[in-house]
Amino acid sequence: MSTLVMKFGGTSVADLKRIENAAEKIAREHAAGHKCAVVVSAMSGVTNQLVAWCNELTVDHDAREYDAVVATGEQVTAGLMAIALQKRSINARSWQGWQAGIISTQAHGRARIQDIQSQPLLDALDRGEVPVVAGFQGISEDGRITTLGRGGSDTSAVALAAALKADRCDIYTDVDGVYTTDPRVVPQARKLKKIAFEEMLEMASVGAKVLQIRSVELAMKCGMNLQVLSSLDAPIGSELPGTLLVKEEDMLESHVISGVTCSKDEAKITLHAVADKPGMAASYVRPLANAGITIDMIVQNVASDGLTDITFTVPRTDLSRALKALEGANLGARDIVSDDKVAKVSVVGIGMRNHPEVPLQMFETLASNQINIQAIGTSEIKISVLIDEKDAGKAVSALHAAFELDKIA
Amino acid sequence: MSTLVMKFGGTSVADLKRIENAAEKIAREHAAGHKCAVVVSAMSGVTNQLVAWCNELTVDHDAREYDAVVATGEQVTAGLMAIALQKRSINARSWQGWQAGIISTQAHGRARIQDIQSQPLLDALDRGEVPVVAGFQGISEDGRITTLGRGGSDTSAVALAAALKADRCDIYTDVDGVYTTDPRVVPQARKLKKIAFEEMLEMASVGAKVLQIRSVELAMKCGMNLQVLSSLDAPIGSELPGTLLVKEEDMLESHVISGVTCSKDEAKITLHAVADKPGMAASYVRPLANAGITIDMIVQNVASDGLTDITFTVPRTDLSRALKALEGANLGARDIVSDDKVAKVSVVGIGMRNHPEVPLQMFETLASNQINIQAIGTSEIKISVLIDEKDAGKAVSALHAAFELDKIA
Repeated sequence: MSTLVMKFGGTSVADLKRIENAAEKIAREHAAGHKCAVVVSAMSGVTNQLVAWCNELTVDHDAREYDAVVATGEQVTAGLMAIALQKRSINARSWQGWQAGIISTQAHGRARIQDIQSQPLLDALDRGEVPVVAGFQGISEDGRITTLGRGGSDTSAVALAAALKADRCDIYTDVDGVYTTDPRVVPQARKLKKIAFEEMLEMASVGAKVLQIRSVELAMKCGMNLQVLSSLDAPIGSELPGTLLVKEEDMLESHVISGVTCSKDEAKITLHAVADKPGMAASYVRPLANAGITIDMIVQNVASDGLTDITFTVPRTDLSRALKALEGANLGARDIVSDDKVAKVSVVGIGMRNHPEVPLQMFETLASNQINIQAIGTSEIKISVLIDEKDAGKAVSALHAAFELDKIA
Repeated sequence: MSTLVMKFGGTSVADLKRIENAAEKIAREHAAGHKCAVVVSAMSGVTNQLVAWCNELTVDHDAREYDAVVATGEQVTAGLMAIALQKRSINARSWQGWQAGIISTQAHGRARIQDIQSQPLLDALDRGEVPVVAGFQGISEDGRITTLGRGGSDTSAVALAAALKADRCDIYTDVDGVYTTDPRVVPQARKLKKIAFEEMLEMASVGAKVLQIRSVELAMKCGMNLQVLSSLDAPIGSELPGTLLVKEEDMLESHVISGVTCSKDEAKITLHAVADKPGMAASYVRPLANAGITIDMIVQNVASDGLTDITFTVPRTDLSRALKALEGANLGARDIVSDDKVAKVSVVGIGMRNHPEVPLQMFETLASNQINIQAIGTSEIKISVLIDEKDAGKAVSALHAAFELDKIA
């Protein structure tokens, strides 16, 4: 008998029919003898309405009141889900954040879970009950309702799974797993049965919006098996139906590359002919940092005549602010040019640690497709290139084929 | 400086515009130097939606989960109202039932307030804050959310006013006070400046749906001044704009009659020629009581030949069940006839205690309008007659004029 935490996102509880459907899945796991704790999001659309009301009154609303208002979305789903489970003769009850002992920081609207006083929930599981916990929320030390920020229900689920020493945390969503790349772009994309946490983090940060990053980080830290699967289809068979996120050492046979991702959220800035001297990097990073703008890729060319060209990327939405900040900083550049028609295409895989040929293979594939590389960035398990936005689809398809991701079983 | 509890019902907080409008009224009282505590209902329509969801899942839903779901309606309004007040530079915060220390019984869906641990709210008032309390809800001893039943926010407000030792409890609603009769039926109806609790109770029980009866009973018990007024119109002037409910001894000059009411919710049943013997009354009341059906007016005629006719009224919606229960009880009646085209018209007034001519005047008025009386019921401050439903409007108008209610200043 294992303990499972099952989390259902907004689209999986969007209406009563979907709630009933989710209850069926829970009932099946419960009947199979598992101890099940459930975490639910608000019915999709509900949170948006509540947020809109707060903003309509005033954009400068009190985050504590915002939290009291928006936390109701999950409270409703938790009660309805408990009723749907009771209808299936399961001894279920709803637990709000404050009832479930989910203690958070006081950073309203973006609180972090500090502790889960899990004994009451453990006792409930021991009695054969199915606790249905309202996700996304907690209670601060001074007794106010807090919320964890958008997507926080994933984090609630993983934190709860860790507190309950669960064997697995299943995240039910509207996709049936993590794919080698976006199936809408590359029809040959394959669902991964397993992916390492590190890979998922690299993939999440470059555009795969399956799981909230914080929840993946937390699962990695706790060593919690995390499965992403669809709430809409397929009964539970002998095999896990979704994608399982595991520790690197639990990847029995890792692929060299697990995925190709594409992000069009960035813009490129180039400073031409700036002085190549100590402190130069800090001098252009400083005004951006002061403006709260994150820099991603940075390329600095070899200097000639004591002058060098520097290229870096910033979030596309911050481009005009970034240019203003740089112009005001008096960097001595001959000129500053920008381009917001760029895409960042990345290949991700823990296997590349042992496969030094990966960068070569990537660059050759792009070259043979006449795609020019404007910048390169790497991490231990990722290589990213900045290319012209119009080449993005072609690049992703070519890399997906070159690394044989369409052949993953 | 006085302490006020201001309660806003569902139509008074139906949307953001109305919430802002209510916030204006609170801001005005606050600026006038009063300590103000606010109680809010759910935005109108919200509770109905939440209840419908519970019922759609199963009509046999767990009342504890029902409470967790429907209590969110008031939680949302409380948060939004706090934001609307803060926007007006008022130091406001929302308090849910469990935060405000509103301890209730465990009778979920129809809980009663047992205690209000009011110190935190008193401290907040002393700091100049405006607490906005979610009405209709409390917390049981075992830490579950409870609700007080439909209209329970009125009760929340009165109980809170008592706990805070408020000088007055203002109930803002969609009518501007208590009228001598329904203004839609009798255009000459006048708004009462004052009404005694006892009168209001008699009027509420016969159709005036201005205040929840429990809240009036509670206010009477606590001696709390209770004002009914409109949230939609008129600024606050020197005079109280609504109707004030007061103790009988505080009615400086009481009218003989304060109101005429009409109820069409009843049906009449007559048992013809039943034996006139001890225990007869019990024999027909028992099957109805067993079926959970309430009897209102009862008329038993003088017996002749040891046989008598008995007439009584039951709620119209229970008529067919009542007839079935009576037929099954084998009462030995010659026949049982029923009529659901009846109306109960009542005159109410504490003044009638000292005016024995009231019944005569009532009966003469009806007689001169050719209205036949089918049954009569009385209390110390009320006389009710059962008449043909088609005569109801005429009877109310005639009585309203006869007792000069159109001349109340």
